[in-house]
Amino acid sequence: MTADLDVVGVGNALVDVISMESDEFIEGRGLVKGSMRLIEPDEAVALYDAMGPGVEMSGGSAANTLAGLASLGGRGGFIGRVRDDQLGTVFAHDIRSVGIEFPVPPATTGSPTGRSLIIVSSDAERTMNTLLGAAAELGPDDVDAAFVARAQVTYLEGYLFDRELAGQAFEKAAAAAHNAGRLVALTLSDSFCVERFLTAFRGLVSDVVDILFGNEDELCLLYETDDAMEALGHAERVCDLVVMTRSADGSVVSKRGQRLEVAAEPVPRVVDTTGAGDLYAAGFLYGLTHGHDLATSARLGSIAAAEVISHVGARPETVLAGLAAPLLV
Amino acid sequence: MTADLDVVGVGNALVDVISMESDEFIEGRGLVKGSMRLIEPDEAVALYDAMGPGVEMSGGSAANTLAGLASLGGRGGFIGRVRDDQLGTVFAHDIRSVGIEFPVPPATTGSPTGRSLIIVSSDAERTMNTLLGAAAELGPDDVDAAFVARAQVTYLEGYLFDRELAGQAFEKAAAAAHNAGRLVALTLSDSFCVERFLTAFRGLVSDVVDILFGNEDELCLLYETDDAMEALGHAERVCDLVVMTRSADGSVVSKRGQRLEVAAEPVPRVVDTTGAGDLYAAGFLYGLTHGHDLATSARLGSIAAAEVISHVGARPETVLAGLAAPLLV
Repeated sequence: MTADLDVVGVGNALVDVISMESDEFIEGRGLVKGSMRLIEPDEAVALYDAMGPGVEMSGGSAANTLAGLASLGGRGGFIGRVRDDQLGTVFAHDIRSVGIEFPVPPATTGSPTGRSLIIVSSDAERTMNTLLGAAAELGPDDVDAAFVARAQVTYLEGYLFDRELAGQAFEKAAAAAHNAGRLVALTLSDSFCVERFLTAFRGLVSDVVDILFGNEDELCLLYETDDAMEALGHAERVCDLVVMTRSADGSVVSKRGQRLEVAAEPVPRVVDTTGAGDLYAAGFLYGLTHGHDLATSARLGSIAAAEVISHVGARPETVLAGLAAPLLV
Repeated sequence: MTADLDVVGVGNALVDVISMESDEFIEGRGLVKGSMRLIEPDEAVALYDAMGPGVEMSGGSAANTLAGLASLGGRGGFIGRVRDDQLGTVFAHDIRSVGIEFPVPPATTGSPTGRSLIIVSSDAERTMNTLLGAAAELGPDDVDAAFVARAQVTYLEGYLFDRELAGQAFEKAAAAAHNAGRLVALTLSDSFCVERFLTAFRGLVSDVVDILFGNEDELCLLYETDDAMEALGHAERVCDLVVMTRSADGSVVSKRGQRLEVAAEPVPRVVDTTGAGDLYAAGFLYGLTHGHDLATSARLGSIAAAEVISHVGARPETVLAGLAAPLLV
């Protein structure tokens, strides 16, 4: 069977609630700027009460990546779990409206649709406080092996690793991809994520993952070193294709140990870094699944990331295919 | 009793769902660019399905005005109806988070929280398609006369006139304001609104309203003339203070027939005109309730309107008190 989709993502289906707050607000509540942290319903209510007026827009790491892929003209699918509530409707609408297939019906029982309370500070850093809700109740039953088999790449969101049931969904998706002769990609997602599940992540990377995405911090934590290039070396030994992002310093792509450094795309003004890694992955995977070389794929990642950090919100506001066109002629 | 609030607004409690679409999209669906139109649930679903990815943020005309007043440092209250659902929680959070009192508890029965599907086109025009939902079920029982009596000005949103029960809420609020020796303001809200309820609006303006806000089109429709200045003349004869907004041409303020023209505030780039009239009213009412003269109040209106049309969304993104400070020293 030929793959009629470029990428299927498996991730948290979340709606972002974004407000701009001062550093004092972040410090005063004991939050760690730039981090992602899971919160329980009680804390979500208290934090939301304290936050200023919010803007709601669909988020979720892998879902952002799929939205970016669609904006580049790619074809994708998403597997994640929402409830049959208003935020669930918003999430499903937004991802389908950009042409991504989202075959998982909203759950009729369980927690409400998950949300991420995102505080953006004046230096464009985002501090994420995520109430996973229904997203965390994703399980293997939500993964349709035939759907996964349609995609060249199955892209797994590290954040999902937090729950056992979701871990089983991961395994099922990865197995379905490999059985169909497809590739499995993983994004490490977050330092805290890596720390919490160090052994499991290492096993996953060495046994299952064909393409690994991570930033310097995440890779360093994964291989317990302070040296990003050393960490990359560890990853290279077990994983065919490793992509290490380095914020303003661009990225390093390593294919069977052959390293390639690519610069970041300049941005006139960085407004909100939310979604930078997600959109980098979107550009990279679009390139990879459309026959472009690694340098071009990484440049596409840089272009997509640059667009998303130049405005509030984690999904593109501009048609990325237009921004990428000069590179693809 | 002294008034410890500047303004209490009575209006539709709505969450805006905003997407950017082409002129072809608007024409293809038979929508009238720049208008507001009420839609039923079936059409709301069909239109939402056709719209691109959305951004959700609190809206509602009078509620936007109150948010603007708060951003200028004013004290306000809001009366409107939401359901006990996720969008209702968003609306209540956002208005309370800027310091506006919102004493109406969410309804536990009836329609879901209302929403306005707003299509913004590349020329910054907004086309609004509003499913009133719970907002239209506002009735006199939701109006607490003692709460209204606390405000110098009670500000009524013309849109509410669409439903009889809401009309009764209007009457109760206006009576409570006048019984307490306060002022009653009305915004005509929309041309279609004025056309539908011509006689009722005329009666309201001549019998109840102390301060009337309207744009040229609305006033022309109200007095069935093509000449805005003639329409203003009609309004002047029955209403103590009339404020006519004229988009890029600024505004005309008429106090007992004495007219004052005030220029619009220049805007580098108009992005989305949603909320322009609402924010003009915010600035004007802030000035009026803080002892400023009419020229200064109108300038404050222009400044607040200029801020809100320079970005997507109908509520200020910048602290308006900062923008207004040079005028108020």
